[in-house]
Amino acid sequence: MSQSRRSFASDNVTPVAPEVLAALARVNVGTVHSYGDDPESRRLTALASATFETELVIHPVATGTAANALALAVLAPPFGAVYCHETAHINTDECGAPEFFTGGAKLLALASPDGKLSAGQLAAPVAHAREMGVHHVLPAAVSISQATEWGTVYQPDELKSLTAAAHAHGLHVHMDGARFANAVAYLGCSPAEASWKSGVDVLSFGATKNGALAAEAVLFFKPGLARDFEMRRKRAGHLWSKLRYLSTQLVACLEQDLWLRHARHANALAARLAQGLARQGITPLHPVEANEVFVAMPMQQIAALRAQGFEFYEWPAPPVAGQPVVRLVTAYDMTVADIVALVAAVAALSWRCPA
Amino acid sequence: MSQSRRSFASDNVTPVAPEVLAALARVNVGTVHSYGDDPESRRLTALASATFETELVIHPVATGTAANALALAVLAPPFGAVYCHETAHINTDECGAPEFFTGGAKLLALASPDGKLSAGQLAAPVAHAREMGVHHVLPAAVSISQATEWGTVYQPDELKSLTAAAHAHGLHVHMDGARFANAVAYLGCSPAEASWKSGVDVLSFGATKNGALAAEAVLFFKPGLARDFEMRRKRAGHLWSKLRYLSTQLVACLEQDLWLRHARHANALAARLAQGLARQGITPLHPVEANEVFVAMPMQQIAALRAQGFEFYEWPAPPVAGQPVVRLVTAYDMTVADIVALVAAVAALSWRCPA
Amino acid sequence: MSQSRRSFASDNVTPVAPEVLAALARVNVGTVHSYGDDPESRRLTALASATFETELVIHPVATGTAANALALAVLAPPFGAVYCHETAHINTDECGAPEFFTGGAKLLALASPDGKLSAGQLAAPVAHAREMGVHHVLPAAVSISQATEWGTVYQPDELKSLTAAAHAHGLHVHMDGARFANAVAYLGCSPAEASWKSGVDVLSFGATKNGALAAEAVLFFKPGLARDFEMRRKRAGHLWSKLRYLSTQLVACLEQDLWLRHARHANALAARLAQGLARQGITPLHPVEANEVFVAMPMQQIAALRAQGFEFYEWPAPPVAGQPVVRLVTAYDMTVADIVALVAAVAALSWRCPA
Amino acid sequence: MSQSRRSFASDNVTPVAPEVLAALARVNVGTVHSYGDDPESRRLTALASATFETELVIHPVATGTAANALALAVLAPPFGAVYCHETAHINTDECGAPEFFTGGAKLLALASPDGKLSAGQLAAPVAHAREMGVHHVLPAAVSISQATEWGTVYQPDELKSLTAAAHAHGLHVHMDGARFANAVAYLGCSPAEASWKSGVDVLSFGATKNGALAAEAVLFFKPGLARDFEMRRKRAGHLWSKLRYLSTQLVACLEQDLWLRHARHANALAARLAQGLARQGITPLHPVEANEVFVAMPMQQIAALRAQGFEFYEWPAPPVAGQPVVRLVTAYDMTVADIVALVAAVAALSWRCPA
Repeated sequence: MSQSRRSFASDNVTPVAPEVLAALARVNVGTVHSYGDDPESRRLTALASATFETELVIHPVATGTAANALALAVLAPPFGAVYCHETAHINTDECGAPEFFTGGAKLLALASPDGKLSAGQLAAPVAHAREMGVHHVLPAAVSISQATEWGTVYQPDELKSLTAAAHAHGLHVHMDGARFANAVAYLGCSPAEASWKSGVDVLSFGATKNGALAAEAVLFFKPGLARDFEMRRKRAGHLWSKLRYLSTQLVACLEQDLWLRHARHANALAARLAQGLARQGITPLHPVEANEVFVAMPMQQIAALRAQGFEFYEWPAPPVAGQPVVRLVTAYDMTVADIVALVAAVAALSWRCPA
Repeated sequence: MSQSRRSFASDNVTPVAPEVLAALARVNVGTVHSYGDDPESRRLTALASATFETELVIHPVATGTAANALALAVLAPPFGAVYCHETAHINTDECGAPEFFTGGAKLLALASPDGKLSAGQLAAPVAHAREMGVHHVLPAAVSISQATEWGTVYQPDELKSLTAAAHAHGLHVHMDGARFANAVAYLGCSPAEASWKSGVDVLSFGATKNGALAAEAVLFFKPGLARDFEMRRKRAGHLWSKLRYLSTQLVACLEQDLWLRHARHANALAARLAQGLARQGITPLHPVEANEVFVAMPMQQIAALRAQGFEFYEWPAPPVAGQPVVRLVTAYDMTVADIVALVAAVAALSWRCPA
Repeated sequence: MSQSRRSFASDNVTPVAPEVLAALARVNVGTVHSYGDDPESRRLTALASATFETELVIHPVATGTAANALALAVLAPPFGAVYCHETAHINTDECGAPEFFTGGAKLLALASPDGKLSAGQLAAPVAHAREMGVHHVLPAAVSISQATEWGTVYQPDELKSLTAAAHAHGLHVHMDGARFANAVAYLGCSPAEASWKSGVDVLSFGATKNGALAAEAVLFFKPGLARDFEMRRKRAGHLWSKLRYLSTQLVACLEQDLWLRHARHANALAARLAQGLARQGITPLHPVEANEVFVAMPMQQIAALRAQGFEFYEWPAPPVAGQPVVRLVTAYDMTVADIVALVAAVAALSWRCPA
Repeated sequence: MSQSRRSFASDNVTPVAPEVLAALARVNVGTVHSYGDDPESRRLTALASATFETELVIHPVATGTAANALALAVLAPPFGAVYCHETAHINTDECGAPEFFTGGAKLLALASPDGKLSAGQLAAPVAHAREMGVHHVLPAAVSISQATEWGTVYQPDELKSLTAAAHAHGLHVHMDGARFANAVAYLGCSPAEASWKSGVDVLSFGATKNGALAAEAVLFFKPGLARDFEMRRKRAGHLWSKLRYLSTQLVACLEQDLWLRHARHANALAARLAQGLARQGITPLHPVEANEVFVAMPMQQIAALRAQGFEFYEWPAPPVAGQPVVRLVTAYDMTVADIVALVAAVAALSWRCPA
């Protein structure tokens, strides 16, 4: 029973998928050239190009923070401005990594209720920056999260109008795709449609939360933008000598659509969780489109669930109707039983402690 | 036969030791807290403390460049000076990572024939720096490689006199131990004696070259020095969310002295290689104390060996008697047959192409 | 007539006060030691200590951006957070200088209608930061502008409660005193009361806008905080070799209270301007406490005034009742005639173009 | 008599030339636009273009360290290599300013006896860098001092062969012209010939040591290279609001060749000093081509001269024949009597304390 009391804290508490462990073992044969000059790394490039239906440059790194910060460092100069949502992971959870890697660029945060930026939000701040000249950081890039930090997903047409505006303003477009798999699974479109065909220039492609051990990748859809990346990765200590073991994790995820199968599973559980909670009168605060469910709950309920062994975060957002906001994350390795257990626990509590 | 033809280019072309892969599988059970709040990471701290016979702070990272650069960033301010050997990896092979992580500190390179710094080399540059005041970067730290970049090993008494001088000058002492295992194996002393008992403040402990997948660690023997480390690691993108998989690699290496058994093996092969070459009249340029053999060879011989499939680097050092310097590295996974094959190939060539 | 058509754009369009030019000539005798080891620089320290009634460390630099960014660099680590008002000059007008000098620290902007931060605004963001641990930048400092960017002035008791809260949270307190003179002139209190006696740790003391050529100073009221300053100033290229010419400008300003006489004059003109405009139905948007007047004006009126040669900025703030916000700055060298001319022009226009 | 006892420590102990003070007074009329949008700054651009016989971009700053570090920041990326002489001011006397402004680029020091780099010195290190790829910083620029740190002067043909090699290697060429005036005065050629016609891309033009108060300038002979400069200057706090007072110092220096008249005077005094010392058996260690004389002197002689009030630096160079090296600098404001007094003092001592 306590087995089903599992953590909804994050999808990064998960173990490694068997396919990924198997891939590590598969490439563990003999010596190969270090630093990426190996067959598995080349295979990754081919596989990613096939998956995204385009020639691209892909560079794997071990963490999402590294992927994002390195991507931004090639897109924005030290005196640059990067526009992002105020809730963006790069703005709130990376301890200033973008500032470090760019050499001091400034994240300019924009707001919206659903975690998405929209095309119209760029004009005013960019115009102001241009007018201020050398006194203001230089508009350089937009960074968006897909899925967003509120678990919502940009539709391709939303992406297209946003990226068109960004490009019109001379801004590069970066997508933090820590949960890109969940977004694509939700959209049901091609990875290409969810990225470069919708105007994304550089994608941080996440795999760690979705079954890998420690593997993300930076994908450049405009290869010219990748020019400095390899030197920046090396001097940031993010070039593995035994790169085959990083590349193979991503290969295992992309092969046979493991990444999408994982994401579909997690998304489906999130949807089920949202429905279960709604039946208890706890309505999600945002559309549940990926693998995150945000709800407001009374303090006592939160405490009671935790006392039963459920784990999750209170989210740094204003209380809703006096109740703290909590985030419940589903993951590739979760089961229906895990969801059922949580919903049942909530139901039992709702009965006991009406708000 | 061709199986024994192999790469002497570096110990980082090696695969992962079975014990390390097994450790990854062992910890791959269920969910655990992310970012290091997990049992395996705690076990690593305990194991490292036992191995080094002292309370210490240990933080794992995936690469040696990250370990070195993060260590230096906590030891030297942006306006600091780090004294190192001119051949130091931090000075020549890390694309300016120390400069990046420290925010612009300056590596001041000192010279010696054997790759070791000695106590007497510090007085003059430190005195000059003090005299120059604000015009000169501030003396902050000494960084030494153990084993050195020439494959030699500091004796504990050499370390003690160097670190005493450094401390007398107000400098912290960092040791780049990418091949610390090989040094300890050579010295036959305790890890403690080779590090903190000989005055080392912070150690970059290497495991990747010695059987791990991607695992190094920064060890703080003066826990107070570790104060900023965790924030710096996070903002550098070097904090793994699934840290158990990094910690367990180091656990596997430290358990049952795997790291020392590996290193002894590699050292023994290097000694055997050196002897074999010497018998062909090719004398090592430096004492072979760890797992690297440096020799000068005629161009034709180099080309002929490469044509047979042997791999190794010409080293960026002045030619010796008109011949390029080459580096031959042995590793934990190499066999006597590998050594025999190379020596035999050299012998055959020596017979054919006398210098 | 066109003589009285002068610029209300900023107090930095002003010439140098005769007393300052005279001081430059006064110290222009023979050789002296460079880099601050000169009698005039020592005199500045003595004079500043007397003015502020405490032992302090004072370091002159040529620009306000340098003063602010250097001050913040000694108060906040690269992974630090600096809390400031969203309108703060460091946040909006210095092209990321604080991020550059600190090595990537993050400015966390707080909002308020009058440009002042209050004690209660710190608790929540600091608590959130502490809870987030390594994922969030480390709370390090608060920076406030006095006078504020809206021309308002913190009262000593407001300062005291804010700085007490900041210190209780472990934050250093920096004051951007580009217009500190105007604030002190308004308050009528001692410079000590307006700074260290009210809990300010480090003050950027502005003189350029108030009659100097190019002279600001960073004042450390806790001398221990100044430790790194001189090395940071040098490596930022802000240590003048002929420092006497920088020091003497500040000496000239502090001597015989020139700085306060200038500020009182500018403040009085601003008050007069505000009254004149109010009589035309144009009410200042914020209390006019220093030398800046913010008003909303119809577009046509702005255009008409500019056509007559008046200069001023539209301010980057939301329109008020559909009218752009403009900033009118008075200065030490302005005359009553300048004010009268502007008010008369507005009056004439008000008559012609009622809103 | 004691009036002619004076400092030979540096040309930065000098006062400001009357022409420069007069220029400050001349522009001190009324309000002008700040930040360089003023007539005097435009006049500087015109005057510099005329002086250098080419369209150029010129940006004044207050210090040589700022000029050099900003120039290098636009020429080298954070992962770049800047080749310079080991004695270069940027390498030894600027507290790591180039590393700070570039975001961590690495100065790679080359050696030569006379302080000059030669074309042949670049090939090997650049080839090594290219071979090392991402492990080595990227060759980006060469920086040379003219006059050199040993008081010698590159001939135009030396410059041309060096800059041709640099350009062939893809490197930009920066010239630290803190004493460019002295070099041009020595060469007797045009400023154009000493700079862009000889392949220099960016020049740090010094005026402070040559009669200005605090004024240097960065000159871009390839305007495209200047692209980022203004943003970098602003965020470094080096954009004066009252820029007219910086521009006018340079105008005063360039007008009527004041800079060259000053330099010729200082050079002539240095030559005279060298001759006087040579007659006492003290031969300059390097050709005296600008305004610096380097000699070796017995300790007692140094002490005796200092006891008489003469000031100068012992130079951080190996002793010559057991005697410390001292640097004697002449300046625009020095008189023949100053030289005579020093030579006489040396002569008197030579008689008393033969080496």
